Amino acid sequence: MIKELVVKNRSYRRFDMNVSISGEILRDLVDLARLSATGGNKQALKFLLSNTPEMNRKIFPQLSWAAYLKDWPGPAEDERPAAYIVILGDTGISNTFGCDHGIAAQSILLGSVEKGFGGCMIASINRPALKKELGIADHLEILLVIALGKPAEIVILESVAPGGDIKYWRDEQGRHHVPKRSLQDIIIS
Amino acid sequence: MIKELVVKNRSYRRFDMNVSISGEILRDLVDLARLSATGGNKQALKFLLSNTPEMNRKIFPQLSWAAYLKDWPGPAEDERPAAYIVILGDTGISNTFGCDHGIAAQSILLGSVEKGFGGCMIASINRPALKKELGIADHLEILLVIALGKPAEIVILESVAPGGDIKYWRDEQGRHHVPKRSLQDIIIS
Repeated sequence: MIKELVVKNRSYRRFDMNVSISGEILRDLVDLARLSATGGNKQALKFLLSNTPEMNRKIFPQLSWAAYLKDWPGPAEDERPAAYIVILGDTGISNTFGCDHGIAAQSILLGSVEKGFGGCMIASINRPALKKELGIADHLEILLVIALGKPAEIVILESVAPGGDIKYWRDEQGRHHVPKRSLQDIIIS
Repeated sequence: MIKELVVKNRSYRRFDMNVSISGEILRDLVDLARLSATGGNKQALKFLLSNTPEMNRKIFPQLSWAAYLKDWPGPAEDERPAAYIVILGDTGISNTFGCDHGIAAQSILLGSVEKGFGGCMIASINRPALKKELGIADHLEILLVIALGKPAEIVILESVAPGGDIKYWRDEQGRHHVPKRSLQDIIIS
């Protein structure tokens, strides 16, 4: 069951622009992060929500998409995310955030898949520009942006041999292929 | 449903010593991590599994437990974890691991809760000692240890006011109380 969600939870980068995500759904997703573990229970993460065309337009240009797809500059106008959750670290609470944003982001994305949405964690961000565009306070550090929407692409998991190439790629039909290492290759005995 | 798992997935530090965890279950849990996102799809994490008394005894003394419980040195002999998953970063693949271990750990813990187990992510580790005890190769960096078992404690979520104390505590019945910030307190509008 959780396995099903994890398998379904691919990194989606193209979305159905006709499907929006309400503020209530975004808050429900953040609630999953709120109830997840944080280092020393500090709960130093903050969450900025965006689901309006105006705000989304400020976020999109500050993100880098799919580094391995050299010929693809990111989703076209009509396949962009319906919403974003920007995960921030509150330096007024802690100076280090460990892997808290990873824990939070995984809860959020598993929750979004369950609701029929999906998305992508993006760490390649023009942070100074995004801070300025969104008027984010100085004491909040941008850790991760989660792009969300109704996925409009097919993602196919593949096996990769030890030492093989893990770069994802698109075939002629536009399907996105993701090579994954085997269990045997990642377990140390 | 995912909400139910997230709520049930508390940080458990005391376990029923009579319940073991098989190698097969540990591999199933790592499979959830394997199928979860990693930065640039690099899949630079490796997983070391332990569920034998001998190996568990090498891991336990290298971990720090529940920093806020000053009078509690960690689980007693008869309430220790049945198993551990040590998450390692393979520096032969990448020099940075971002928040990949957080993503992986959350998948593993949600999976373990679904199977009737539970556990705790531990980042406060005597890394040099653990590396030596387990004979971990030089190119593998210890990122996180997940302690696992059948939980044998009650964990109670509580609300904390903005700026309030987030330190967890134990009451006279030994129940573990965890103050959580409100949704309103963590969402930036």
